[in-house]
Amino acid sequence: MTKTNPGSFFEDFNLHQRIDHATPRTVTSGDQALYTALYGSRFAVQSSDFFASSIGYRHAPIDDLLTFHIVFGKTVPDISLNAIANLGYADCQFLGPVYPGDTLMAESQVIGLKENSNGKTGTVYVRTIGINQRDDEVLSYVRWVMVRKRDERAAAPEAFVPQLPKRVEPSALGRDCPVIDPALWDNDWSGSPHRFGDYAAGEKIDHVDGMTVEEAEHQLATRLYQNTAKVHFNQFSEAQGRFGRRLIYGGHVISLARALSFNGLGNAFHIAAINGGRHVAPLFAGGTVFAWSEILESADVPGRSDVGALRILTRATRDLPCPEFPVVDGTPDTPGVILELDYWALMPR
Amino acid sequence: MTKTNPGSFFEDFNLHQRIDHATPRTVTSGDQALYTALYGSRFAVQSSDFFASSIGYRHAPIDDLLTFHIVFGKTVPDISLNAIANLGYADCQFLGPVYPGDTLMAESQVIGLKENSNGKTGTVYVRTIGINQRDDEVLSYVRWVMVRKRDERAAAPEAFVPQLPKRVEPSALGRDCPVIDPALWDNDWSGSPHRFGDYAAGEKIDHVDGMTVEEAEHQLATRLYQNTAKVHFNQFSEAQGRFGRRLIYGGHVISLARALSFNGLGNAFHIAAINGGRHVAPLFAGGTVFAWSEILESADVPGRSDVGALRILTRATRDLPCPEFPVVDGTPDTPGVILELDYWALMPR
Amino acid sequence: MTKTNPGSFFEDFNLHQRIDHATPRTVTSGDQALYTALYGSRFAVQSSDFFASSIGYRHAPIDDLLTFHIVFGKTVPDISLNAIANLGYADCQFLGPVYPGDTLMAESQVIGLKENSNGKTGTVYVRTIGINQRDDEVLSYVRWVMVRKRDERAAAPEAFVPQLPKRVEPSALGRDCPVIDPALWDNDWSGSPHRFGDYAAGEKIDHVDGMTVEEAEHQLATRLYQNTAKVHFNQFSEAQGRFGRRLIYGGHVISLARALSFNGLGNAFHIAAINGGRHVAPLFAGGTVFAWSEILESADVPGRSDVGALRILTRATRDLPCPEFPVVDGTPDTPGVILELDYWALMPR
Repeated sequence: MTKTNPGSFFEDFNLHQRIDHATPRTVTSGDQALYTALYGSRFAVQSSDFFASSIGYRHAPIDDLLTFHIVFGKTVPDISLNAIANLGYADCQFLGPVYPGDTLMAESQVIGLKENSNGKTGTVYVRTIGINQRDDEVLSYVRWVMVRKRDERAAAPEAFVPQLPKRVEPSALGRDCPVIDPALWDNDWSGSPHRFGDYAAGEKIDHVDGMTVEEAEHQLATRLYQNTAKVHFNQFSEAQGRFGRRLIYGGHVISLARALSFNGLGNAFHIAAINGGRHVAPLFAGGTVFAWSEILESADVPGRSDVGALRILTRATRDLPCPEFPVVDGTPDTPGVILELDYWALMPR
Repeated sequence: MTKTNPGSFFEDFNLHQRIDHATPRTVTSGDQALYTALYGSRFAVQSSDFFASSIGYRHAPIDDLLTFHIVFGKTVPDISLNAIANLGYADCQFLGPVYPGDTLMAESQVIGLKENSNGKTGTVYVRTIGINQRDDEVLSYVRWVMVRKRDERAAAPEAFVPQLPKRVEPSALGRDCPVIDPALWDNDWSGSPHRFGDYAAGEKIDHVDGMTVEEAEHQLATRLYQNTAKVHFNQFSEAQGRFGRRLIYGGHVISLARALSFNGLGNAFHIAAINGGRHVAPLFAGGTVFAWSEILESADVPGRSDVGALRILTRATRDLPCPEFPVVDGTPDTPGVILELDYWALMPR
Repeated sequence: MTKTNPGSFFEDFNLHQRIDHATPRTVTSGDQALYTALYGSRFAVQSSDFFASSIGYRHAPIDDLLTFHIVFGKTVPDISLNAIANLGYADCQFLGPVYPGDTLMAESQVIGLKENSNGKTGTVYVRTIGINQRDDEVLSYVRWVMVRKRDERAAAPEAFVPQLPKRVEPSALGRDCPVIDPALWDNDWSGSPHRFGDYAAGEKIDHVDGMTVEEAEHQLATRLYQNTAKVHFNQFSEAQGRFGRRLIYGGHVISLARALSFNGLGNAFHIAAINGGRHVAPLFAGGTVFAWSEILESADVPGRSDVGALRILTRATRDLPCPEFPVVDGTPDTPGVILELDYWALMPR
């Protein structure tokens, strides 16, 4: 029997199956420094112990998406090693702040299975939970992937497709955010004069700046997250693959778009939930990422007078500046939209 | 009204205007690790808690230039987003040691303004102060930049050009350096047998080694400093720009030259002040940086018998080894000098 | 007299000579984060304070090879600046765990000298010791390098070639590993169900995955280790050199192979000793590294019922997947084996 991990194929998954993922990972200020170097993020809460503690945090938490990427990375060897496509995310909630020194672990449960009509592949839905060393849940999300069957003649499980919310309810937001004091929030330090009340549904913001991605950068990022998906690292095999080159981890694009969004959303200090995300087209090294955002909703968070929630649809593009707010146009090989990310951000009132 | 930062144009600046810059930034051992990985610096005081504390420091401070780059980076969105050229630095003093865990903030004051005769641009002089979470000044410097006017017909402010010192006085040096015990300074560990008394004005030192710069490296560095200047990151727009490619942050060259200078100046453990600096020609990825130094002065530091100060002029070159001590020759497109940096370094007696 | 380091030539070395190397280096969680980002290593003990402390460690130690590379890097300016080839390693023992916050220093003794018959070069054998700030030995190894003579007419020292063990004795292993509790070792978290007893001499494991190396990555790594060997950094001079390009530090290949070996050896949590290593062929940026391992021996560690020792021969290749377990075939310019590393790893019973 081989001792290497062959990954799971579609027929290996069972509804309600639970999976404890390797590897527990202590997150440190070193990880956060690398995160800053990889994306140039400038949100004050995550950048400064002094700023964070002045408004009510213990000290600076790590970036929300760093938590997401580390938890996500752990699931790859068990869930998506034989995946053909990462189809979507839903109901992603950030449930507790993660500080340097905390250890992140991940476990998943299979919540849906559906064989495709071609009999060669199927869709696997998993709910993944990120927990810390005190067994607190810090993250919970659903993703679904298309996975190859090992044996096309294997019997299909009974199809079950879970009901997924279109968006996280505002009442569920902000559990991981301490009550902050908006009067102590210094707009000069945070880099933006615009608070929650200054944004309205329908508003569109071009984030202006562009960032070109190098092979070394996305490889460093993806390894930092201990994400082992082969397509990101192996030029020897990818040269013979679908694209002829290494594919950049979709989460790298999400983090770039979020960092670029600082220019226009500087006080959107915390991603409270991700309602959904789609990687519309691939990104390769040498591409330049731009982004723009649309405010979908402006919502009160029940019980919170310190912060409000903006539901934001951020689109990232490849080699296409966004002054005209481009949308998906169905031509994946030309410059255009590569990511749609629908998320809730908290902002001080 | 746009919520993105358009940057300030020449006519937006007022003499004596004060600016508090975003983003407060806690510096960590992660940042210092990245700094080491980016430049390979080997100065013992900044590399080792054990060495630093044995001679009188609390523990290892972060690299002086890491402090400079982080403070500098904060000023970019407010001062130089619409700059055409970074013209110079003067009177840069390091005033307090920065340790991992400290938070750096920056504020600037406009100390000079002068419209250029073409009526399209002007020079802005700012004094920038870096402060820590205890409100101690840790850095102070002047820089001047050429900034575009938004409207060529805008009235010019009355011209005021500040008087700037050619060099920082030796009596102002070393405030951020504890009294060290030169008898406990181990030359084997520091990597050089040459102390303050072994150097004399007029001496020239070729630092021998060369370092080739990759796109990923300077991008990681510049993002680590949260420096948002567009020319460093956006190949899509720079392809249409002046050089057809991304320009490397000048501070990256300064740090490379300083790291290379270890070979010949291994005991010059602390940059106490920068008298002036000029980026004579641009650097692009693929270029190899070499450096050589000339000792301009050897000075006692009043009240200090532990250390002396060397005034050093370090020149960095692109694709030109320095055994013949090249100087600026006015042909920016050929291999040659790209940086002149005039600074004071402390050395144990 | 020049103040730059010209390095030592063969005739400068004396038998029994002792050398204290610069620069003391405090290792931090930032260094470990970079190590993870550079190689994607997933061994649970080094990744997680929580996991490490649950089985008996104080908290997560830094990666064994990070210790090795940092100690090795310190010896370069004194031992191998004028080396033509790094010929081999032997009797490398890890003697104490290294935790973030510890400072590493290195000292060497010349234990052998032998001029080559051409009179132009000679082999220098050194025993290098890595010590921490409490003067504990944490690492000890022998390496030998071929070094140029400054003056071909210089007299040769009397030849002395030290006796070196083919392998470290199992009784010498594990001094730096606390007694762990295998019952508390969670296979799900560590990422492998295979314990010591599941491996037998003769077994071969293809580690499957491949990793392409970029210039920026190996330069970041090698500078992190403060290794100053010129061939890794200077494209300007290497363009005229033997290969026409920068040569990747051999230790970078060792770390890549070790990280890849997680897939098949996930519970081989600690490198207790390196019996020998050979860099069979060079690696350059753009090459993809694969690896496979052969179990040479399975040994009890005297006095230890918690862990056993596997002697493993890991071969790394360039641009050659390893399902057929390739061996050195003597054609260095084609894809094939670039590293043979014979080491002892500890595994829980």
